[in-house]
Amino acid sequence: MRLPHLPLLDPARRPALQAHLDDLTKPQGSLGRLERLGLQLAWIAGTPRPQDPEAFILTFGGDHGIARHGVSAFPPEVTPQMVANMAAGGAAICALCRANRITHRVIDAGVAVPCDFPGVSQRNVVRGTADPLVGPAMTRAQAEASIQAGIDEVEALPNPGFALLGLGEMGIANSAIAALLNSAFTGLSPEAAVGPGTGVHGEALRNKVEVVKRVLAFHRPDAKDPLGVLTAVGGAEFGAMAGAMLAGAARGWAVIVDGYISGAAALVALALEPRLKDNLVWSHRSAEPGAKGLLDFCGIEPVLDLELRLGEGSGAALAVPILRSACAVMREMATFSGAGVSTAESPVG
Amino acid sequence: MRLPHLPLLDPARRPALQAHLDDLTKPQGSLGRLERLGLQLAWIAGTPRPQDPEAFILTFGGDHGIARHGVSAFPPEVTPQMVANMAAGGAAICALCRANRITHRVIDAGVAVPCDFPGVSQRNVVRGTADPLVGPAMTRAQAEASIQAGIDEVEALPNPGFALLGLGEMGIANSAIAALLNSAFTGLSPEAAVGPGTGVHGEALRNKVEVVKRVLAFHRPDAKDPLGVLTAVGGAEFGAMAGAMLAGAARGWAVIVDGYISGAAALVALALEPRLKDNLVWSHRSAEPGAKGLLDFCGIEPVLDLELRLGEGSGAALAVPILRSACAVMREMATFSGAGVSTAESPVG
Repeated sequence: MRLPHLPLLDPARRPALQAHLDDLTKPQGSLGRLERLGLQLAWIAGTPRPQDPEAFILTFGGDHGIARHGVSAFPPEVTPQMVANMAAGGAAICALCRANRITHRVIDAGVAVPCDFPGVSQRNVVRGTADPLVGPAMTRAQAEASIQAGIDEVEALPNPGFALLGLGEMGIANSAIAALLNSAFTGLSPEAAVGPGTGVHGEALRNKVEVVKRVLAFHRPDAKDPLGVLTAVGGAEFGAMAGAMLAGAARGWAVIVDGYISGAAALVALALEPRLKDNLVWSHRSAEPGAKGLLDFCGIEPVLDLELRLGEGSGAALAVPILRSACAVMREMATFSGAGVSTAESPVG
Repeated sequence: MRLPHLPLLDPARRPALQAHLDDLTKPQGSLGRLERLGLQLAWIAGTPRPQDPEAFILTFGGDHGIARHGVSAFPPEVTPQMVANMAAGGAAICALCRANRITHRVIDAGVAVPCDFPGVSQRNVVRGTADPLVGPAMTRAQAEASIQAGIDEVEALPNPGFALLGLGEMGIANSAIAALLNSAFTGLSPEAAVGPGTGVHGEALRNKVEVVKRVLAFHRPDAKDPLGVLTAVGGAEFGAMAGAMLAGAARGWAVIVDGYISGAAALVALALEPRLKDNLVWSHRSAEPGAKGLLDFCGIEPVLDLELRLGEGSGAALAVPILRSACAVMREMATFSGAGVSTAESPVG
C-alpha cells in the first residue's frame, strides 16, 4: 500500500499570516477561536486571503461482527436502511449538507449486505467485519483495501484547489470499534473510552465495556502497527475515513473530523502519518465521553460544542460555515491602514 | 411610547413539535442542542417544518459620555471610523454577513458626529450621550426615541414571514455601559460585570470598575423602571437594539442576541416585555467575563463558544447557519415510518 504524500506546511510562513490577521480592522484577538481557525486555514491554503472553499462530506457505511454481542441499541439492519435513507436524501447529514452548500457522497465501504441504491459509491471491501472476539475483524489485505477505498473516493472528487473535506460514517456498533481504537492508540481505559453511542445505558453499557475489554485482551493491539490494529478490530469505514483524510491533506485541503468515530479514524491516519495533524480541524466536542480523552491526546480544540452524538458527518457539516467564515474574515476584511481606522496605539486622521 | 405587541407563543403547541422531531431518522436527542434550537425555531415559526429563514443583522452605532473617563482602549473617533468601514463593507461583520447570506444594515443611533456615509441608516437620537457621572446620559425623550429608532428600523425591513434578526453594535466605551445595565438589571457586582472590552487591563481595568461603581452610586438605577435605567446610563444603541428585538419578535421572528453588549440591550427589552424571552436565541458565550452572570440571569444557553469579544453582530452572524441548519433538520429529514428505518424499539422490514 502506498500512502498519499502530504506536502509540508512550513511553520516559517505563519508570522506573515499572523501579521495580516493583526492588521484587520478589529481589536487583536477579538474573534477568538475564529482567528486561530483563519490562521490555520490560510496556512493550509498557502495564502493570507484564502478563497471561499468548496466543501465535501463523505459518509462511509460499514458493519461490524462485534454487533452480535449486544453493544448497540439499534439492530444491524439499520446500517443498510440508513445508507438507503442517505442515498434518498432523508438523513440528517443530507439536510445539513443542503443547508450549508456541501457536496455529499455516500459510500459503501463494508456494509454486510449490498447497498446498490442509486447514488451510493460502491467501494465495499468486506461484507461486514468478522467477530473480533474469535479472530481479526479483517484480513490485512482488507484493511489495506479499506484505506485505499477512502483514497480512491477522494481522488474521484473534483479538485478546486483549496477545499474542506469532512468525514463521517454510518455503521451499527461502530462506537464500540471507536472505543477499541481509542484505547489501542491513546492508552485510554475501556471504561473511559466506551460510551452510550446511539443509546446504550445501564447493564447494556456495562456489557459493552466488558466486550471491549475482552477484545483488547484477545488481540493486545500494538499502536506502533496501525494497520495491525485496524486489521484486529476493524472496520472498513474507519480505514476508508483514514485513507480519505490522508488523500484530502495530500491535495492541500483542510480535513474536518466529525465526532467520536471519525476521530478514532483520525487516530489511525495520524499513526500512519503524523503530519496530517496540521491539516486537521476537529468539528465538535462529541457528547460521547471517550471523545475527551481522544481530544486531549491529539491536543486539538474543537470548533463546536452542541452535544452532538449522531455521526454521519453531521458535526463536520455544521462546522463548515464557521470555517468558511474564518476564511472570509482573512480574505475580505479591510486593514487599519487601508480603512483609516485608529488603533489602540496609533490614532488616524 | 407604544411598544410592539408580541404574539403569544402557546406552550400547548410544543408536544406536537417534539413528536415530529422524535420521528426523524436519527437516535432521539442525538443532535443535542441543535434539536432544542430546532424545536424553539419551529415553535416561533408556528410549524414543525419551518422555512429556510431569511436573516437580517442590524448594527447600531453610538457614542458615550463615559468614554472621557478612560474606560476604553480605543479613542472615541473610532466609532464613526468603524461605521464608515462597515458602510464600505470592510468590517468583520460585513465579511461574516456576505459569507452567511445575511442582509446587513448599519444604523447611526447615537454617534457623536454625523455619519452620512452612503448606506448608513440615519436614525440618530443623540450626538453622543452625556457623562453619566454628572447627570443622566440621555433625556427620557431621547431614551424613548432610541427604542423607537430600533422599532422603525425593523419595520422598514421586508417581512418574509419567519426570519432571523440579529442585533449588534459599534460604540467606543459601550462595554462599560453594558456592565452598568447588567449590574442594574441582574444585581451583579461591578467587579463581576466589568471586563476588558476591546482590551482594557490592569490599572485601566480597575479604573473602569471604579467609574462603573461611581455611576451606579450616583444614579441608583431601579430595575423596575427600565426606561429610567436607560435614561440614566444610556445609550442610544442599547435602546435601539432593545426596540429592534421587540419589533422582530412582534413580527414572529427569532431574535438573535450577539454578545455582552447586545445581551445588555436584551435586559432592557426583557424588562419592558418579559415574553420576548421565547423568541430569543443567544448566539455565543462572550469572552467578556460579565456575560456569564447575564446568561445565568436569563437562563439561556448560548449556541457557540468561540471566545468572541468583538461585537458588531459577529456572533449573531456565525450563529445564523447553525439556526438555519436546525430549521433544515426539522423541515427536510425523513421520518422512521416514511423511510422504512428500524428504531431501537421497533424493527422494520
